[in-house]
Amino acid sequence: MNSITTAGEKKLVLVTGRANMELAEQVAECLGTELLPTDVYNFANGEIYVRFSESVRGTDVFVMQSHCSPINDWLMEQLLMVDALKRASAKRITVIAPFFPYARQDKKHRGREPISARLVADLYKTAGADRIITVDLHTAQIQGFFDGPVDHLVALPILADYVKANHPGDLAVVSPDAGRIKVAENWSASLGGVPLAFIHKTRDISRPNSTKANRVVGEVEGRTAVLVDDMIDTGGTIVQAADACMEAGATGVVIVSTHAVFSGPAVERLRDSVAKEVIVTNTLPLSEDMKFDKLTVLSIAPLLARAVHEVFEDGSVTSLFNI
Amino acid sequence: MNSITTAGEKKLVLVTGRANMELAEQVAECLGTELLPTDVYNFANGEIYVRFSESVRGTDVFVMQSHCSPINDWLMEQLLMVDALKRASAKRITVIAPFFPYARQDKKHRGREPISARLVADLYKTAGADRIITVDLHTAQIQGFFDGPVDHLVALPILADYVKANHPGDLAVVSPDAGRIKVAENWSASLGGVPLAFIHKTRDISRPNSTKANRVVGEVEGRTAVLVDDMIDTGGTIVQAADACMEAGATGVVIVSTHAVFSGPAVERLRDSVAKEVIVTNTLPLSEDMKFDKLTVLSIAPLLARAVHEVFEDGSVTSLFNI
Amino acid sequence: MNSITTAGEKKLVLVTGRANMELAEQVAECLGTELLPTDVYNFANGEIYVRFSESVRGTDVFVMQSHCSPINDWLMEQLLMVDALKRASAKRITVIAPFFPYARQDKKHRGREPISARLVADLYKTAGADRIITVDLHTAQIQGFFDGPVDHLVALPILADYVKANHPGDLAVVSPDAGRIKVAENWSASLGGVPLAFIHKTRDISRPNSTKANRVVGEVEGRTAVLVDDMIDTGGTIVQAADACMEAGATGVVIVSTHAVFSGPAVERLRDSVAKEVIVTNTLPLSEDMKFDKLTVLSIAPLLARAVHEVFEDGSVTSLFNI
Amino acid sequence: MNSITTAGEKKLVLVTGRANMELAEQVAECLGTELLPTDVYNFANGEIYVRFSESVRGTDVFVMQSHCSPINDWLMEQLLMVDALKRASAKRITVIAPFFPYARQDKKHRGREPISARLVADLYKTAGADRIITVDLHTAQIQGFFDGPVDHLVALPILADYVKANHPGDLAVVSPDAGRIKVAENWSASLGGVPLAFIHKTRDISRPNSTKANRVVGEVEGRTAVLVDDMIDTGGTIVQAADACMEAGATGVVIVSTHAVFSGPAVERLRDSVAKEVIVTNTLPLSEDMKFDKLTVLSIAPLLARAVHEVFEDGSVTSLFNI
Amino acid sequence: MNSITTAGEKKLVLVTGRANMELAEQVAECLGTELLPTDVYNFANGEIYVRFSESVRGTDVFVMQSHCSPINDWLMEQLLMVDALKRASAKRITVIAPFFPYARQDKKHRGREPISARLVADLYKTAGADRIITVDLHTAQIQGFFDGPVDHLVALPILADYVKANHPGDLAVVSPDAGRIKVAENWSASLGGVPLAFIHKTRDISRPNSTKANRVVGEVEGRTAVLVDDMIDTGGTIVQAADACMEAGATGVVIVSTHAVFSGPAVERLRDSVAKEVIVTNTLPLSEDMKFDKLTVLSIAPLLARAVHEVFEDGSVTSLFNI
Amino acid sequence: MNSITTAGEKKLVLVTGRANMELAEQVAECLGTELLPTDVYNFANGEIYVRFSESVRGTDVFVMQSHCSPINDWLMEQLLMVDALKRASAKRITVIAPFFPYARQDKKHRGREPISARLVADLYKTAGADRIITVDLHTAQIQGFFDGPVDHLVALPILADYVKANHPGDLAVVSPDAGRIKVAENWSASLGGVPLAFIHKTRDISRPNSTKANRVVGEVEGRTAVLVDDMIDTGGTIVQAADACMEAGATGVVIVSTHAVFSGPAVERLRDSVAKEVIVTNTLPLSEDMKFDKLTVLSIAPLLARAVHEVFEDGSVTSLFNI
Repeated sequence: MNSITTAGEKKLVLVTGRANMELAEQVAECLGTELLPTDVYNFANGEIYVRFSESVRGTDVFVMQSHCSPINDWLMEQLLMVDALKRASAKRITVIAPFFPYARQDKKHRGREPISARLVADLYKTAGADRIITVDLHTAQIQGFFDGPVDHLVALPILADYVKANHPGDLAVVSPDAGRIKVAENWSASLGGVPLAFIHKTRDISRPNSTKANRVVGEVEGRTAVLVDDMIDTGGTIVQAADACMEAGATGVVIVSTHAVFSGPAVERLRDSVAKEVIVTNTLPLSEDMKFDKLTVLSIAPLLARAVHEVFEDGSVTSLFNI
Repeated sequence: MNSITTAGEKKLVLVTGRANMELAEQVAECLGTELLPTDVYNFANGEIYVRFSESVRGTDVFVMQSHCSPINDWLMEQLLMVDALKRASAKRITVIAPFFPYARQDKKHRGREPISARLVADLYKTAGADRIITVDLHTAQIQGFFDGPVDHLVALPILADYVKANHPGDLAVVSPDAGRIKVAENWSASLGGVPLAFIHKTRDISRPNSTKANRVVGEVEGRTAVLVDDMIDTGGTIVQAADACMEAGATGVVIVSTHAVFSGPAVERLRDSVAKEVIVTNTLPLSEDMKFDKLTVLSIAPLLARAVHEVFEDGSVTSLFNI
Repeated sequence: MNSITTAGEKKLVLVTGRANMELAEQVAECLGTELLPTDVYNFANGEIYVRFSESVRGTDVFVMQSHCSPINDWLMEQLLMVDALKRASAKRITVIAPFFPYARQDKKHRGREPISARLVADLYKTAGADRIITVDLHTAQIQGFFDGPVDHLVALPILADYVKANHPGDLAVVSPDAGRIKVAENWSASLGGVPLAFIHKTRDISRPNSTKANRVVGEVEGRTAVLVDDMIDTGGTIVQAADACMEAGATGVVIVSTHAVFSGPAVERLRDSVAKEVIVTNTLPLSEDMKFDKLTVLSIAPLLARAVHEVFEDGSVTSLFNI
Repeated sequence: MNSITTAGEKKLVLVTGRANMELAEQVAECLGTELLPTDVYNFANGEIYVRFSESVRGTDVFVMQSHCSPINDWLMEQLLMVDALKRASAKRITVIAPFFPYARQDKKHRGREPISARLVADLYKTAGADRIITVDLHTAQIQGFFDGPVDHLVALPILADYVKANHPGDLAVVSPDAGRIKVAENWSASLGGVPLAFIHKTRDISRPNSTKANRVVGEVEGRTAVLVDDMIDTGGTIVQAADACMEAGATGVVIVSTHAVFSGPAVERLRDSVAKEVIVTNTLPLSEDMKFDKLTVLSIAPLLARAVHEVFEDGSVTSLFNI
Repeated sequence: MNSITTAGEKKLVLVTGRANMELAEQVAECLGTELLPTDVYNFANGEIYVRFSESVRGTDVFVMQSHCSPINDWLMEQLLMVDALKRASAKRITVIAPFFPYARQDKKHRGREPISARLVADLYKTAGADRIITVDLHTAQIQGFFDGPVDHLVALPILADYVKANHPGDLAVVSPDAGRIKVAENWSASLGGVPLAFIHKTRDISRPNSTKANRVVGEVEGRTAVLVDDMIDTGGTIVQAADACMEAGATGVVIVSTHAVFSGPAVERLRDSVAKEVIVTNTLPLSEDMKFDKLTVLSIAPLLARAVHEVFEDGSVTSLFNI
Repeated sequence: MNSITTAGEKKLVLVTGRANMELAEQVAECLGTELLPTDVYNFANGEIYVRFSESVRGTDVFVMQSHCSPINDWLMEQLLMVDALKRASAKRITVIAPFFPYARQDKKHRGREPISARLVADLYKTAGADRIITVDLHTAQIQGFFDGPVDHLVALPILADYVKANHPGDLAVVSPDAGRIKVAENWSASLGGVPLAFIHKTRDISRPNSTKANRVVGEVEGRTAVLVDDMIDTGGTIVQAADACMEAGATGVVIVSTHAVFSGPAVERLRDSVAKEVIVTNTLPLSEDMKFDKLTVLSIAPLLARAVHEVFEDGSVTSLFNI
C-alpha cells in the first residue's frame, strides 16, 4: 500500500512548425496518425507564439520543421516548440530537421568566425531536444556537434533508384567541388562503379583578376554526367559545372541534389541550364512558382516516417542510412 | 626561468549587429572609441554570416543589438556573434539587448506554452554570453532567467526629467493595464507623489459579446494624464487608454514608453490619438517614416555608455538603475 | 538470446519531509495510498539525516514539504531527500512545494542582492529534481526559474467558491498592494465582474518623516471588500488595508489568502482586525494556537492529489490551473 | 581607436555571514583590511535577506561562514551571499567553510541515504562558488566532491605545537575510533614517533543486548594519552575513550580536536571528564557559557588569513597543508 | 487519432570490453542471456575501434570492463563503448567496473596532484553513463564522486563465508595499514567479534635512513591472522605484514583481498610468503601464469549478476551491499 | 580599507607529458623559458601518477602531449595533468595536442559506433581544459567538437616552403584519397596553381573478391607527383598511391605529411617505396630506428611557440593558420 502501480505504455505524437506543413502531413499519413493541433502565429513585432492544443505529458514527441527562408524564424519557432514541450512534460523530444540549418558553417574557415552548425546543435540541446533526425548533412561530422543520438538519414537510395530507372546508358558521376567528392564516390559505388570526376576551380594565371575557370578532372566524355551535391542554393556552381561537363564531352547532364534551397536566381538558372533533368527531394518546400518543367521532386516523407517509426519502436535506423 | 611574467592589462571592444547601427555608434562615441569592424551579411537562403575583422583575443567585448522586426534574425545574428567571440578567445562577453526579446512571454499563461524569455536567456548563455545589459525589462523577474549578472538599467530618470521639464501643471500617472501599475507607482513617486490611476478592462455584461470597456480607476480629473508603459507595440491599448483618460476628465494626455516597438498601425494610431506628445527612447530604431510631429525620441546611448564604462572599470552600475 | 525483455510498469511513491505531515497524509489518502516509511531526524548539531526504509528504484516519486519556519531546515531536508532518491535510482523525482520558498525575492530590488527564488529552483535541480508542483506563486515568472516542467496550481477556484457560498451581497475585490492587482483582477472576473480597487500607499508630504498613508483607489463604498493576496506574513499590510476599506465606506471586509505564513504578530493582528472572516488554505501547517474563531482553513490536499494523479498518469494538469 | 585599454589590477574583498563574526574580524585584521559592510537579516518567516553595501564588481571575494547550529540557516545564508556576489559580477568567489557542513555524511552507509557532503559541495557550485577553503575535513576525499580547487588546510601544526609546549613527558597518541586512526598516525609522526593506539568498540558477547565495550588497542600505559579527533560533537565517544585510556594505565589524558561542535551535553561531559585539558580551535564559535576552565581555544584566523593571502597573490598554499 | 499508443516493455542488454571476457560470460550465464556481439579492435596506432553488431535502441545496457593493465586502454575502451551506446539511443547505460580505476588517487595527498578517481567518475558521466556498479571501493567516499546512482557491492560475505568454512580455530583480523582498519573492523564483526589488530609502520629513529619497521598493534598471538585488504598490487605491504604477524606470535596467516591486481613481483612474493592461503576474487582477470598453489579465486559473477538483475527489475540492491 | 588592491600580472607556464619531451623542450626554448618540473610515473598496475613540483596558482598553463602509441596512456596522462592544474588553481589551461587523438573517428561511419573525436574533446573539457591548440586536424569540423576556442594551426607553409626549395621542376599535387582532395587543393594553390589529381579506388568488377584498384584521376604525366596527406599511419595507402602515380607517368614522387604516425610496417614500406623523399614534421616523436635515409623531419616547434606566445599575449593566431 506504499505505492501505486500501473502498466506502462508509450505514446507517439507528431507536431510541426509552419515551414513545410505538406511534408509533415505526408509523414503523419505514412505513420497512420494526424498532426497534433497547434496554435502558432506571429505577434505584430515578429515574435512567435506557440501553444499545443492537447496534452503531450509523457509522450514521445517528434517536432518537424523545414529550414527554408526565413530560416531564422523557422529555427526559432522550432526552438520555442521544443521549449514548450519540455515544460509540458513530454517524455522525449526528437527534432526533425531534414535540412540542418547553417550546416555549411561547420568549421572556422578563417579566424573569428562562428561555427554556426555547432551553435544550432547547442541551441536545440538547450531548448530541450533529446535527439535529432536529419537527412544528408553537409558534412557527416555535424553528427558530432550534438551531444546525443543523431539519426542521419540518406536520400541516395531514393535518388539513385530514380536515376537508374530513368537514365539508362553510360553514366559518370561528377562532383561540382573537390571538397564534396566523397559523396560522389558513394554515388559512383551505388551506380555500379561508374567513372568519377570532379570540377577543379582554378584561377587563370595568364589573365590577372580573371574569374576562376572550371576544369573537369576525370573522364566524362561520351557519358551522361550525373552531377551530385547535397544542396543547390543559388545554383551558380552546379550550372557552371554542368557547362564544364558538356565542354568536356559529356553527352548530357543530370543534376541531382537532396536539398532544393533554390535561393535568388536558382530557378531561372536551372531551368535555362544545359541539364536534361534536375532531381531533388522535398526536404525543403517548393512553392508552385519554383517548379519548372525539367524539375522532378521525390518525396522524403516515407524515409522520415520509417525513421520515426523505428525510433519510437526502438527498432534499428541503421538500415535506413547505410548505403 | 620556469615561467614568463608580464604586466596585465584589459581592453574594451564594442561590436554591434545590424539592427541599430546608429545607437551603437552613439554609444561608441560616448565612450570615446569606435565600433570594431565586422563583416555581417546574409547568405541567399537567409543564413547569416559573421566575422570580426580584427583580433578580439583576451578582450572585454560588448555585443550590441536591437531586437526590432525581423526580431528572430537579429537575435540569431547576435547569438552567432557571441559564438564567434567565444571561439576567438574573448575574455568576457557582455550582451547588450536594450529591448529584451520575447520579454512578454515570461511565464506560461496557459498550459503547453513556452517560457520564451527564459529560452532566450538560455540561448545567450549557450552561445557564450557571460553577462547581459538591458533596459526596462517587461518584468524584473526576467533577471532571474539568466545564470549570471544582469545589469538592468532604468530609463525612468531620462524620461521623467523630460516630462517634468516640458509638462508643468497638475499631473496624474496612469497605467494602461492593472498588471503594469507597479511601474506607474514608481513614476508617481518620481514625479513627486502625484495621483495614480489605472485602466480596468471589463466586459460589459449587459451587452453579450461586446468588447471590453475601459474604465479609469483613480483620479485624473483636471490633470494631465501621464500614461506610462514599458513598450508600445501596436498602440491599441495605450490609445484606448488615452481616450478613457479624456473621458474621465483629464485635461490632456502625454504618452511615455521606453520601447517604441511600433508595429503595424501603431504610428497612425499614435499620430491620430488624443495625446499631446508621445515620448520614447531609441532602444529600438525608428526609421524616418515612423516619426511624426508629436513624437519625441530621447537617446538611451549615454545611459548604455555609462553602464559599459562601469562594467569595464568594475565600478558600480547600481547607481544607474536605482531610482 | 542477446537480451532479456519484460513488460514495463510504473509505480508511484509519495514521501514527505517533517514540516506538514498532516497535509501529506491527506494527499496520500486522496490518492488511496500511504506515505513511504522514512527515517528523518536531526543530529545534535542540527544536521539532518534522511533514509527511506523501502526501495524506490525505478519509481515515480513525489517529495512533499511545506516551507514554514524553520524554513531553511525544511528546504535542506527536502534537498537531502531528493539527493537520496536520485542516488537510490528513482526514475523521476517531483518536488511538491505548495508554498515556494523565498518566492518574494524573485528579482534584484536593488544592486548586490541575490535572486533567492532562482537560487532555490537551481538547488532543487542540482539535488536531482525533475519537476516541481507548486501553488499560487508570488509571481508566475518563477516558473521560468526552473529548467523543467513546473505545474503551477491555482487555489482561486477553491477559495472563490467558498466566498461566493458564504458571502452573498455586493462585493468589491481589493488588492492590498498596487503590484498585486493582477491577482485581484482574476478574482474580480471569477466573482462575476465585481468592482476592483487597490490600496495606494503614499507618503504624506505635508508631514516630514511621517509614515505612509493608505488610500483606496477604486470603489468599495457600500460593498463587502474581499481583500485578496497570495500570502499573509506578519499581517501588517493586509490589516491596514482592511482598515482603509472600512474608512472608504465598505460595509465589511473578508480577507482571503492562499498561504498562511502567519509570522510574529500575524495571528493577533488578524484576530483583532475589522475583518469578518479570514480564509486561507493549509499549504502551510497551522498549529492549534495559530487558529482563531474567525479563521477558516480550506484543504489544498484534493488539488495536490489530483495534480499528482495527472502527472503520474500523464494526464493534463492544465485543467487544474486554468481559471 | 577600436578599443580602450587600461592597466589591470586586482582587488581582494572579505565578507562574512553572521555565524562567527569574531573569527571573520580576526581574519580581516590579520590581512590588514576590514569586512565589507553587509546587510543580513531574517524575514519574519525565517527567510534570510542579504545585500552588500558596496560594489564587488570585478573583485576576488572570500565569503566566510562558520557552520554551527542552526547549521542549515548558516549554510543557506552563505549560498545566498554567493548568489548575490555572482549576480553582482564578482570576478572570483571563494567560500571559506572552516568546518565543512555535513562532512560526516560523506558516503552511503546504507542504501537510500543521501551523500550530503557531496550535495553541499554541489550547492556551493550551483550558487556560484569557484573555490573552497576549509580546515581538517572529516575525510580528505571530500575535496573530490567539489569540481574545482579546494584548499584543505590542516590545524595539526598549531595544535601539535601547543601540545608539545604544554605537555612534556611521555605521550601516546590515541584515536577514539578505528576509522580515524590515519589522523592519529599523522599526529604520532608530528610528535616525534610516539606510540599509537586506538579504541576498539566491541559488543560484549557474554552479556546479550549489552552496550558496546571500549578497549584500547596499543600501548598507553605510563604515558599521557593524547586523544585526537577532527571534531567533538556530543562528546560521548571521546569522553568514553578518555576513560578507557585511564583504565588502560595512562597517566593522564589530553583531548585535542579541531572542530568544537559541542552539541547537547558536550560541555558538561568534557568539563566533568578525566581529561586534564581540552584543546580546540575556533573554526566554530564558542559562546561564553560553552567555555570552561580546562578548555583551551587556539585561533585558526592566522592560518585562514595566510591561505587567503596566498590564494589572492597566487602563491602556494601547499606549504600550509603539508604536515 | 493524434497519437499512436503501444504497450511499454523493457529490454536488458549486456556488453563487455575485452579485458575480462571470462567474467562477462559468467555474468551473462548467471542471467540466462548472452553477451551482445561487438566489434572491438585496435588501429595500428593503438586507437580503439568499437561497434555493436545489433541494435541497442531503447535498451537498458550494462557495460562490463575489468581495469587491469593496460588500464588506460581498458578505461578508454569502456568510455568509447558508452559513447557509442549513447549515440545509438540506449535508454539507460550502467557501467560495471568491478575494480574502480584509479581508486587509490581519491584525494590530494599533496598539492598539485589530480584527484584521479573523481576524474574517472566525471569521464564516465561525460561519455554518457547513467549509473555505476562497482565492488569494494578503496574508500566508500568515491560513491560521492559520481553524480548519479552507484551500486557499491561488497565481496566480504563471499570471502568471509569461505574463510569461516576453511579456517576453523581462533582467528584475529589484521589490517596491513592503519588507514584501512575500518574494513578490518567489518571483518572482525563478520567473523563473530574476533580480535582486531593493525600494522603500525614506524621509522626506526635509532638508525638514520633505515627503512620503516612494521609493528603489530593489537593481539594476534596464538591465533591465525586473517590479513584483509581491498587490493593486492605488488604485494610488498601485505607480505611484510604477514611476516610481522608471525613475529608477533600468530600461528598462521591467511591473506584475503577482493582485487587481485598482482603487479610486478606480486605473484612471486605471495607464493613465497609465510601465508597459508591467499584468497581473492576475479574482479580482475588472472592469467594462468599468475596462479599458484595456495591461491584461491572465488567468482564475483553471481554477485554482479544479482545486482544487474535487481537494477533491471527495479528491485533492491541494498541487500547485496549491507553486511 | 574594505579591500586590498594590487597590480595585476600574468604568468605563462609550459608543462608536458612524457610522450614527446624533445618537442616540448624545443617549444620552451623558442619561448625563452623552461618546462615546469613535473613528477610523472606509472604505478605498477599502469595507473599514472602526476604532480607538479612548483605552484601553478593563477598561471596561464599550456599542457603539451604528443599522441603516439601507447595513445590511450598519453591521453589519460594529459587529462590527469589538466585535472591537477584545475585543482591547483591554474587560471587558464590550454591543451596542446599537435596530433589530435582519435581524429579519424570524427563521425559515425555506420550505426552504433562512437564519435571518438567528439568524446576526446569532451574529455578535455571535463578534465578542465579551456582551450585547445592543435595542428592539421583530420577534418576541420573537429574544431566544432570542443565548446571553446580551438587554435587550428597549419603546417602547410612549413612543408610547402621546403618542397618548393628542394623540388624544382614541374609538380602535380595528388591526394591519395578522394575524401582528402580539399587539402590537396590548398597545396595546389600554395604551389602556384599546379595540376591536381586524386587516387580513385575501385573494385575490379571483372575479378570477384579482388582487392581494390588504384587509378589516378587527373594529370601527373611528366611531373613530380607531390602526394599529400594529413597523416601516414601504416603507409599502405600512400605507398600504393605512389606506385599509381609512377604508373600514370609521373617522373617522381615526393610524399608529404604532417603527422608521422608510422605504425607497424610503415617505416619499411616508405623506405622501400618509389618515393624520392618523405617529408614529415615532429608532431609525433620518431625514435632513431624509425628514421631512414630519405626521410626529412621538419620541426613544428617554432609554429607551436608562436601560437603559445600569441595566445598568452592576446595577439592574433589567425595569421598562423590562414594559408
